[in-house]
Amino acid sequence: MRKHARTRSSNPGSAGHVVAVDIGGSNLRVALADTKGRILGKFADSTTRKSSPKTLVKQIQNGVSQLLGQAGVPRTSLLSIAVGAPGVTNRDAGVVFATSYLKGWKDVPLADLLESALHVPAAVENDVKLAAIGEHWIGAARGIPDFVFLAIGTGIAAGIFVDGRLIHGPEWVAGEVGYLIVPGTPEESSRRGTPGSLEKMIGGKGIRQTLLQSCDRASALALGGLTATEIFDLAVTGDCRAQTLLERAARILAYAIHNISCVLNSSLFVLGGGVGTNKPLLAATQRILEPYTQPSCPKLVISSLGQDAQLIGAVRIALDRARIESR
Amino acid sequence: MRKHARTRSSNPGSAGHVVAVDIGGSNLRVALADTKGRILGKFADSTTRKSSPKTLVKQIQNGVSQLLGQAGVPRTSLLSIAVGAPGVTNRDAGVVFATSYLKGWKDVPLADLLESALHVPAAVENDVKLAAIGEHWIGAARGIPDFVFLAIGTGIAAGIFVDGRLIHGPEWVAGEVGYLIVPGTPEESSRRGTPGSLEKMIGGKGIRQTLLQSCDRASALALGGLTATEIFDLAVTGDCRAQTLLERAARILAYAIHNISCVLNSSLFVLGGGVGTNKPLLAATQRILEPYTQPSCPKLVISSLGQDAQLIGAVRIALDRARIESR
Repeated sequence: MRKHARTRSSNPGSAGHVVAVDIGGSNLRVALADTKGRILGKFADSTTRKSSPKTLVKQIQNGVSQLLGQAGVPRTSLLSIAVGAPGVTNRDAGVVFATSYLKGWKDVPLADLLESALHVPAAVENDVKLAAIGEHWIGAARGIPDFVFLAIGTGIAAGIFVDGRLIHGPEWVAGEVGYLIVPGTPEESSRRGTPGSLEKMIGGKGIRQTLLQSCDRASALALGGLTATEIFDLAVTGDCRAQTLLERAARILAYAIHNISCVLNSSLFVLGGGVGTNKPLLAATQRILEPYTQPSCPKLVISSLGQDAQLIGAVRIALDRARIESR
Repeated sequence: MRKHARTRSSNPGSAGHVVAVDIGGSNLRVALADTKGRILGKFADSTTRKSSPKTLVKQIQNGVSQLLGQAGVPRTSLLSIAVGAPGVTNRDAGVVFATSYLKGWKDVPLADLLESALHVPAAVENDVKLAAIGEHWIGAARGIPDFVFLAIGTGIAAGIFVDGRLIHGPEWVAGEVGYLIVPGTPEESSRRGTPGSLEKMIGGKGIRQTLLQSCDRASALALGGLTATEIFDLAVTGDCRAQTLLERAARILAYAIHNISCVLNSSLFVLGGGVGTNKPLLAATQRILEPYTQPSCPKLVISSLGQDAQLIGAVRIALDRARIESR
C-alpha cells in the first residue's frame, strides 16, 4: 500500500466527504459523495490527448472547489480523493504507468500530485478495475465473490474479482483482455499502445474498421457510416448485413468470455462500456455460449451502474483510503 | 474448510509423519513424509478405470501399513493424509465430484472414507492443483506469488496461484484450461467427460489423433506409430514432417499461454506432464511467444519436481491439515 499521505483531513471520522474522479480520453468527471457513498453533486470538464497531469490536477481542483461550494460543504470536511485513470496503474504507489488516451503520460505520480494540491489522502486505480469495484459494491455483482467486469468500448479490458478480491497481477496488467487471441481475431502480436487482437475486431472502432471491412463490400458500404451499436440495433430490425456482423462480433466475444471462464471459473460476467452494454450483442453472445457448458456456464448481465460504475468504485476506494488514514 | 475430523492423531505436535497419495488413471502412488516434508518411502500400486473408491481406500490402507512398517514408524505417529484425485474436487468438503479416469466416481466423499479407514484427518485436492502447490512450496515456482502450473499429458489443466494463493473458483473448476478455444483448435463445444478443444489438439492423445490426422497423409503414415514426445524429439533431428507438427502444436500452446497471461498477468508458467515437459515443445513455444510482449511476457520453465510434484503438494496440504487439527 502507499505510504500514508503527508497531509491529513481534520475530520477523519464517520462524518465527512470524499471526491471521486474519472479521467477519460475526452471527459473528466468529478463527484462529491458522503461517507455513505451517496453522490451529492457532479462536475464535468473536457480532456484532450494533450492534457498534461498538471492541467488535469488543476481541473480536478477546480471541480472540487465548485462541488464543495454548491453542496455547502466546508473544505475541512474533505477526507480523501480517488481517481480512475484510463491506463495501467500501480494502485499501491499511486502511479499511472501509461495510457494511450493521454499523450506523454508515463509513470505519473498522480496520487502524490493530488495530495499536494488538495491536502487530503489520494488513491489512484485503473478505470475498468474501479468500475468492477463499483459493481461489486452496489451494482450487478453485489455479493458475488468471483466475477468479471468486462468493459467493451473503444478499448477492451476487464476488472476481475477472485474470492472477493480484485486482482492486479505483478505488473498491474491482469485483466488486459483486449489482447486475447481467439478464432476470428488477428493472430499477430500487438505493439505497446496499439489495440490488441480482440480490440481490433470487437472494440467500438474495431467493429467498424476491421470486422466490417472483412465482410463483403456491399455490407461495408451499407453500414460504413454507423457506429457499432447502431449496426447491432439495426440487426434486430432484420437487416441481414447487420445480422452477419452482429453474429461475427458475438461469436468472437463468446470465445473470449469462454476462455476467461475456463481460467477463472467466474460465475458472472458484467458487461460495461458503449459496445458491451448493447442488448442485441448480449442476446447473441448468450445464445452462442449456450452449448459451451464445460467447464462451467457463467451468467452474463449488463452493468447496473452504467457510466457511474467508475465513479462509484472511486467513492469506494476513497472511503477505504480515508479509513486507513483515520486509523 | 472441512469440519474437523472425528478422529485425532495422538501426536499432533511438530514430530510425526504424514501420508501423501496420488491417484492416477493407471497408477496409485503413496508416500510417507516427515514434518519437514522429507519423503521417507514410496509405495506404488495399479488402478484401472473400474477401481472403486472402496478398493482404492483399501489399496491406500495397505500402502500406508507397508510404508510405516518399512520406515519403522509407529501408526500413532501418523498425523494426517492428503490425496490428489484426477478430477474436479471440492477441497473444503473433501469430495471428488467427478473424474473421467475412474468409472462411476461421482460425489465421492473421499476424505471421510479415508478418515474412517485410517483414523487421521484427511484432505483431498485435484491432482494438478496439488502439483502447483508442490512447485510453489519447493519447486520451480518457489517464492513466486503469481504463476500457472500447466499440466499437459493426456489431459490439460492448470493450477493457478494469484497473490500467493491457489484459486479454485465457485464450482472448483478454475484452471480447466483444456477447454480453451484458440486459433487452430476446434470451435465446437465439448460434452462433459470428453476432451476439451485444447486437449483435442495438443493433449498427448490429441496430438496423435487430431493434430496428426489434420496434416498431410504422408505425415500421418510416417509419424502415426510415435507418441507426441517422440514426434517432437524427432523434429529436432531435422524431420520436416515432425517439425510441422511441432510448430503447429507449439503455436496452439503459445496462444493458450498468451490468453491465460492476458487474464492473470502471471509472471511464470511452469510446464508439467508427459507432453508439457518436452524440451523441443518448450523451445518452439518460447520462440513463438517472443513477439507477444503485450500486455506482458511470462517466463516459461519446465517443472523442477517432475512426477513428484503432486506427491510433494499432497505432503504440503497434509502438513497444513495436521496443523489445523493440532490447534
